[in-house]
Amino acid sequence: MLSLDKVFNAQTVLKNIIRETKLVRAYGIAPDSELYLKPENLQITGSFKVRGSAYKIAMLSEEEKAKGVIACSAGNHAQGVALAATKNGIKSLICLPDSAPISKVEATKGFGADVCLVAGCYDDAYRKALELKEKEGYTFVHPFDDENVIAGQGTIALEILNDLDNIDAIVVPVGGGGLLSGIAYTVKQIRPSVKVYGVQVKGAPSMYNSLKAGKIAYLKSVQTIADGIAVKEPGENTFAIASEYVDDVVLVSDDEVASAILALIEKQKMIAEGAGATAVAAVMFDKLPLKGKRVVCVVSGGNIDVTSLSRVIDRGLLNSGRSSSLLIELIDKPGQLKEISRIIADLGGNVTGVHYEKGNTKSVNGCFLRIEMETRDYDHVNLITESLKKEGFKIV
Amino acid sequence: MLSLDKVFNAQTVLKNIIRETKLVRAYGIAPDSELYLKPENLQITGSFKVRGSAYKIAMLSEEEKAKGVIACSAGNHAQGVALAATKNGIKSLICLPDSAPISKVEATKGFGADVCLVAGCYDDAYRKALELKEKEGYTFVHPFDDENVIAGQGTIALEILNDLDNIDAIVVPVGGGGLLSGIAYTVKQIRPSVKVYGVQVKGAPSMYNSLKAGKIAYLKSVQTIADGIAVKEPGENTFAIASEYVDDVVLVSDDEVASAILALIEKQKMIAEGAGATAVAAVMFDKLPLKGKRVVCVVSGGNIDVTSLSRVIDRGLLNSGRSSSLLIELIDKPGQLKEISRIIADLGGNVTGVHYEKGNTKSVNGCFLRIEMETRDYDHVNLITESLKKEGFKIV
Repeated sequence: MLSLDKVFNAQTVLKNIIRETKLVRAYGIAPDSELYLKPENLQITGSFKVRGSAYKIAMLSEEEKAKGVIACSAGNHAQGVALAATKNGIKSLICLPDSAPISKVEATKGFGADVCLVAGCYDDAYRKALELKEKEGYTFVHPFDDENVIAGQGTIALEILNDLDNIDAIVVPVGGGGLLSGIAYTVKQIRPSVKVYGVQVKGAPSMYNSLKAGKIAYLKSVQTIADGIAVKEPGENTFAIASEYVDDVVLVSDDEVASAILALIEKQKMIAEGAGATAVAAVMFDKLPLKGKRVVCVVSGGNIDVTSLSRVIDRGLLNSGRSSSLLIELIDKPGQLKEISRIIADLGGNVTGVHYEKGNTKSVNGCFLRIEMETRDYDHVNLITESLKKEGFKIV
Repeated sequence: MLSLDKVFNAQTVLKNIIRETKLVRAYGIAPDSELYLKPENLQITGSFKVRGSAYKIAMLSEEEKAKGVIACSAGNHAQGVALAATKNGIKSLICLPDSAPISKVEATKGFGADVCLVAGCYDDAYRKALELKEKEGYTFVHPFDDENVIAGQGTIALEILNDLDNIDAIVVPVGGGGLLSGIAYTVKQIRPSVKVYGVQVKGAPSMYNSLKAGKIAYLKSVQTIADGIAVKEPGENTFAIASEYVDDVVLVSDDEVASAILALIEKQKMIAEGAGATAVAAVMFDKLPLKGKRVVCVVSGGNIDVTSLSRVIDRGLLNSGRSSSLLIELIDKPGQLKEISRIIADLGGNVTGVHYEKGNTKSVNGCFLRIEMETRDYDHVNLITESLKKEGFKIV
């Protein structure tokens, strides 16, 4: 059974393994609330996950430790288990689908784990892990549905309550529910007046649906940029604890998550992964009754690969009118590019790409010009568009 | 005169204005050194600059305070002065060239300053600021060449020495030299065995050239992605202090700075601006004798606009083979795109852009296909290129 004693014990055990991340006051992201961030993206391994797996592993018997641990993950859990095992001086084996990005495989090895690449998808790797557990006697470290893992994540709540007084609410990203249930349980034992909210993405609302239904609901598929919380169903333990202690769970869209990632970059100089930015997205986009409240958002992790990050930024720039793309129909005569360039330059737009698209069936005599620009905002884009129209250009 | 007393006094005065940023152990960026970061990018206003200006402003007489302060900057100094003045309850006026990015103007206003937009460039804004200072009696807050500003920056050294023992070296970004001279002076008074190194960019080596020449050298132009340290000459005070106390100043290239920004994102989940990443770049690229040493790099700021950040990431991805672009000459017959797509997909490349370029003079009968891809690394790019060649495609 989960108990507050266990959470306090976890805090002691984790002392020399994890970083105690300090709350950061965040200005300008949600002006109507007094917002603080719990930056677990700055945790060693780049995610809170190491807390739960390190406590789980530390609590194993000597016999279990001698045999080593096994886990199945392509993400933050893999790195947490790898580091936790290494710090405890024991062996770890992580099963990954062979489609996992090389960077994640290398990071997991870098923390000292052996890696077993399994042909196929996550489910194949999971089956392989269970098979090896049976055969070799490894202890399986579940990513969330385990009381010691949950107790480890609960240490985040102890740190938050110790770091700041008079908190009104704590907002938490939710995948399988380990983080949410650990924090909710701990907070409600110590300071029950503090609200605890969970946030999921619309593309993976497993805990949200389950709590609404009053029983565990299974999702056939999940689709989101927040890959760290793309979980098809909550755990039995995490669902039970969340049912009892969580005040509400709300949903955000992928676009809201992308905007939150951008805001954290611009205002806080921090990288969050999609899952890590969901709680901030919920506060930014007013999904919860937090006006005038003192709120802590857990930023659960920062392990986003730079290719995805680059896409998120590009999308965010487009969404806010800071980059834009115009398709202009031209009559095929000389001097038009010069004229268009002049208009854009005079208005302070910065051209970053030009493509001629000829022979388009929509325009037999002419051709199209695609202009990519850096702009200030939507008003700026409109100003440029209107000026081009006034000079007789047809924007498609 | 600068004195250690002043630096300690600054620490007391700044207590309720600035954040005491905690050293972060950085793994994987420079494996041959024991690297710590002093994350002043996480400082309030996103840069260390607020320390110097806040101490300068706090030390003004009541009469001077009553008249207010003026400064000229489009960047971190502006935001530092604005916040420092607001926290001291006095008026601030910041002169900016009217070409300054809207985001910077808004940020400066957001910290409570009045903003005076001056037609022209930085020098015009600077002249306007001096004119207003004479006319209105404002105190001018210099961005670096002022002993109280230098003493304020020196508080960073106190925090570093208090936070970690047995440091071998501290590495510091250098523009006008306020940060460098404040840290070098303080460190050498307290623990003279600790080396203090400065880092500039090749496109703006003003302090570097000055120290080599033994006198202040003026650069006619500066050109770098590290706009925060694009300074044409060091100050008289900062040059004198650096001459006496700094062990060495070295240079890094813009590409090295871009790689350091990427490494800080990937390994530390932190955003640094170009200037802020120079010290890390120097350690990453072995510009200093730091093998086996315990080193602190100051990450001086994180105020990079996302458009630039997006470009830095794209450049970093290209530099490391994680994105790539192929130009393939085609014979104009059906089915070629299908075949090329198949080869790339089979090898795990992810196509992100396709452009046909027809009627190129280099190839009368054919046309060109530009393929943009996400790839794993250079080996992966080579594998794809070689496979395409083996199937008879001509890569231009």
